[in-house]
Amino acid sequence: MTQLTTIALDVMGGDLGPRSTIAAAVQWLKLQPQHSCQLILVGDRALIQRHLNTFPDYSTQFDIVHAPDVIGMADKPTWALRAKPKASMRQAIELVASGQADACVSAGNTGALMVIGRYVLKTLPGIDRPAIVSRLPTQKGVSYLLDLGANVDCHSEHLYQFAVLAALLVKCLHSIDSPTVGLLNVGSEAIKGNEQVRLARQLIESNPKLNFTGYVEGNQLFQGHTSVVVCDGFVGNVALKTSEGLAEFILASLQEMAEPWLKSPLTRWLTKRFFHKLHQQIDPRIYNGACLLGLQGTVVKSHGHADSVGFSSAIEQAYQQAQLKLPQVLNEALEAWLEID
Amino acid sequence: MTQLTTIALDVMGGDLGPRSTIAAAVQWLKLQPQHSCQLILVGDRALIQRHLNTFPDYSTQFDIVHAPDVIGMADKPTWALRAKPKASMRQAIELVASGQADACVSAGNTGALMVIGRYVLKTLPGIDRPAIVSRLPTQKGVSYLLDLGANVDCHSEHLYQFAVLAALLVKCLHSIDSPTVGLLNVGSEAIKGNEQVRLARQLIESNPKLNFTGYVEGNQLFQGHTSVVVCDGFVGNVALKTSEGLAEFILASLQEMAEPWLKSPLTRWLTKRFFHKLHQQIDPRIYNGACLLGLQGTVVKSHGHADSVGFSSAIEQAYQQAQLKLPQVLNEALEAWLEID
Repeated sequence: MTQLTTIALDVMGGDLGPRSTIAAAVQWLKLQPQHSCQLILVGDRALIQRHLNTFPDYSTQFDIVHAPDVIGMADKPTWALRAKPKASMRQAIELVASGQADACVSAGNTGALMVIGRYVLKTLPGIDRPAIVSRLPTQKGVSYLLDLGANVDCHSEHLYQFAVLAALLVKCLHSIDSPTVGLLNVGSEAIKGNEQVRLARQLIESNPKLNFTGYVEGNQLFQGHTSVVVCDGFVGNVALKTSEGLAEFILASLQEMAEPWLKSPLTRWLTKRFFHKLHQQIDPRIYNGACLLGLQGTVVKSHGHADSVGFSSAIEQAYQQAQLKLPQVLNEALEAWLEID
Repeated sequence: MTQLTTIALDVMGGDLGPRSTIAAAVQWLKLQPQHSCQLILVGDRALIQRHLNTFPDYSTQFDIVHAPDVIGMADKPTWALRAKPKASMRQAIELVASGQADACVSAGNTGALMVIGRYVLKTLPGIDRPAIVSRLPTQKGVSYLLDLGANVDCHSEHLYQFAVLAALLVKCLHSIDSPTVGLLNVGSEAIKGNEQVRLARQLIESNPKLNFTGYVEGNQLFQGHTSVVVCDGFVGNVALKTSEGLAEFILASLQEMAEPWLKSPLTRWLTKRFFHKLHQQIDPRIYNGACLLGLQGTVVKSHGHADSVGFSSAIEQAYQQAQLKLPQVLNEALEAWLEID
């Protein structure tokens, strides 16, 4: 008998709120084999019911947990932790802590998700801070980049812990025995970078379990030479968002350039499949869903402005990690990898 | 009578060395009106002569300054400053300091260029460190991003000075009276970011001469909402290089996707102009050439792996800034802008 995997969704988070998250829940569920998974929608019950009514075939397929409060995008994380114990995001994380859900997903305030996740779930032994990790499409397949904004100030020790966590993540998700690890820097030579990065390099290099291949420069991110790329949260956040912005800019420029030329029905017909494929390949929505790595429970962060396609990718991420019981696997491996006494 | 503008070129720098730099010098000179400018080629005289022989029409059009030494890409900047007083890069900068050249261009070791530039030319009054600034193509035209790697650790005061310098640069180059300034951060809300960025915001906001519009996130870089975007050198370097890498990745993916489909002569013929235009528009080479802003002389840094098209764009940057006498203009304006007592 297949084990039931349960995912809690903070349906109130994100710029589009329940309109996007509930549509995503329905879309995602449609593609699953029956009775293999369960989604819990966490948020304002009346609002959820109203949105579910637009999907009559699915309106009874979800569990609902009522949460009377919402954490705003501009709320200060520590304040939200204290002042909003009944917020949908908090409730979704609590469901993971109590074992009622195997993972949770939120498109809400990243800082609050991090602070509440850490408070409710605690970090894994030997890990000071969770990091946000996401997949990047590259020339050689997928790489994992972290931290993407959970820690805007990092010590070298934190970067080292991120390297260990992400190497274990890739090992577990992709069955790669010794995933390659790179450290993001402003140059490839050993003298380059700031002190924090150079010290992190020493720590990473001194761990024989880590397959460190050296510094990675920004232009190499999409070449995919390493499975893991480590950086502090400020740098990673800017790198990721800059990439998203540039991809959008290039797609928009392409469309603008192609417009006069696509007026001809012949060229339009000839290029239809090409543009479709292009959109599919570059579409950042399929890479949506970043994991708060290092917690004793699976928390997946969706982009704030994710539509239902994007949020559905985030649910899929959470599902995969929940099925692999990622936090438990990491917990068992960390002792040896960090050589905790 | 037009005033003669003289540019010194470190022809030995960069991955391709004289092969690229001298071809670029010839390419660039071809497009200039006669007797309006002079290029000084700085490097190994014999090597320069050999390369010039491949351009017989131009072999006598350049001044040559012999430099017996070269600074390597892996040389430690402070060591290069002490140990290589006769290096081509150093000599090119010295030509600016002595007034024999109005600007210089190098594709060599960025750290060395920064350290030597600062030592030989000194910074402008009120400026602690020069920053590397470059143009970015955006949806609304060109933006200026700095610092791109000269300062991997910055205090808020440095970020503030970069904002002032870049605002003056845009004012001078584009005759914009009050250029908009943004600060790169991980979010747009006032509470976001690290201490250094939040303190820089206070300093920038307190200067009534600066038209500060708030934080800019990575995804907004290519939207071009502000004329200037300020960040520390680590973040800026990663953002710029990541963008370059992604643009290359997308172009390569496009070509790969289009390949089977371009086998048909009809589609090839129909799309030829489109792909040509695309390459032209996204081609990062035309944006090559970053300025070491804040020095008492114009120093332009070319990408290390720039080919002749790229290096030629860098020469053009140097030429434009030299014609405007940028360091002198900045020098005169800084007192009022920084309110130096």
